[in-house]
Amino acid sequence: MVKAGNKAESLRGAVPLSHYFLRERVQPGDLVVDATCGNGFDTLLLAQLVGETGRVWAFDVQPRAIAATRELLEREGCRARVELVETGHERLAESVPPGVRAVAFNLGYLPGGDSTLITDPGNTVLALSQAAELLTPGGFITIALYTGHAGGPEEASAVEGWAALLHPGRFNVWRHRQLNRPDTAPYLVLVERIR
Amino acid sequence: MVKAGNKAESLRGAVPLSHYFLRERVQPGDLVVDATCGNGFDTLLLAQLVGETGRVWAFDVQPRAIAATRELLEREGCRARVELVETGHERLAESVPPGVRAVAFNLGYLPGGDSTLITDPGNTVLALSQAAELLTPGGFITIALYTGHAGGPEEASAVEGWAALLHPGRFNVWRHRQLNRPDTAPYLVLVERIR
Repeated sequence: MVKAGNKAESLRGAVPLSHYFLRERVQPGDLVVDATCGNGFDTLLLAQLVGETGRVWAFDVQPRAIAATRELLEREGCRARVELVETGHERLAESVPPGVRAVAFNLGYLPGGDSTLITDPGNTVLALSQAAELLTPGGFITIALYTGHAGGPEEASAVEGWAALLHPGRFNVWRHRQLNRPDTAPYLVLVERIR
Repeated sequence: MVKAGNKAESLRGAVPLSHYFLRERVQPGDLVVDATCGNGFDTLLLAQLVGETGRVWAFDVQPRAIAATRELLEREGCRARVELVETGHERLAESVPPGVRAVAFNLGYLPGGDSTLITDPGNTVLALSQAAELLTPGGFITIALYTGHAGGPEEASAVEGWAALLHPGRFNVWRHRQLNRPDTAPYLVLVERIR
């Protein structure tokens, strides 16, 4: 079982860094979102962090991603606290109420799946805008970005363009890149709502 | 008094982000270093985080910085656990033993001091190299960088050049920049020793 709250994880990539922020800031009882559930690992971490009193909404447009996530959650005994939504994350605001502590985006394609089925930059930006408005003050969005596959650089550029326009009085926006890795290494954008 | 362990601080700049990592990872009993004590605020935070059983080494080449830090530590009752070293941080390894959890660098000039007395890029890189070798596995260096004053861009470039060459099998190296702020906004480099 993934150890929720393990602080010793090495910051060896964009996803471990996103987990670091999630573990530090998500509390039992929180409302959180996995905008791209993929194989369900982030959904599981979120479900463990919010506990039985919290709630997770997990989105994916691909039925096999939803099925893999459901199976993982059932195996780990966390299924009941997770709402699985088989639809694109650009419809996030239709299912999720305001007051959200954290929204995790892990972009690119489904690991082990069809690499031509990638997240669409326009839909991603729509989803991000909705997510930003649903955050509670102090809440945040993590966005793991991949530029090594076809369409990746365009998506990263759309996300950065959106993030750069967020008002600095309302949002802290950080881009985290690894200086001693190739330029194509996955990286992380963090958007924190101030008030 | 600065509230050690306060998790709610907004990530509104490079120094708050560095405090975030320090608060999360520094434990009572740890050995830590403030490589640029300045007015002593980071030294005080470190002293509070390591507690009575820990040890802090605080460096500054300017006597008035050492004096300001001493006064702050005395006022807050943390003086006994801090070694004040009035010398440039390029001589760090002469005073500090191996096994260090964290080393904080806050570059640029002394706030309220003479802005022409700036940290020297060559000395900074020497200090960073020594700091990296003194870290315990899982230990880390935070480096707040300023590019808005004369000499700032050269210093930042020297630090990034040093960091980019660290072996990815031994160190995780992150550069954290704010996407919705001017390019001259202070930013943070984080170096984590893996093993």
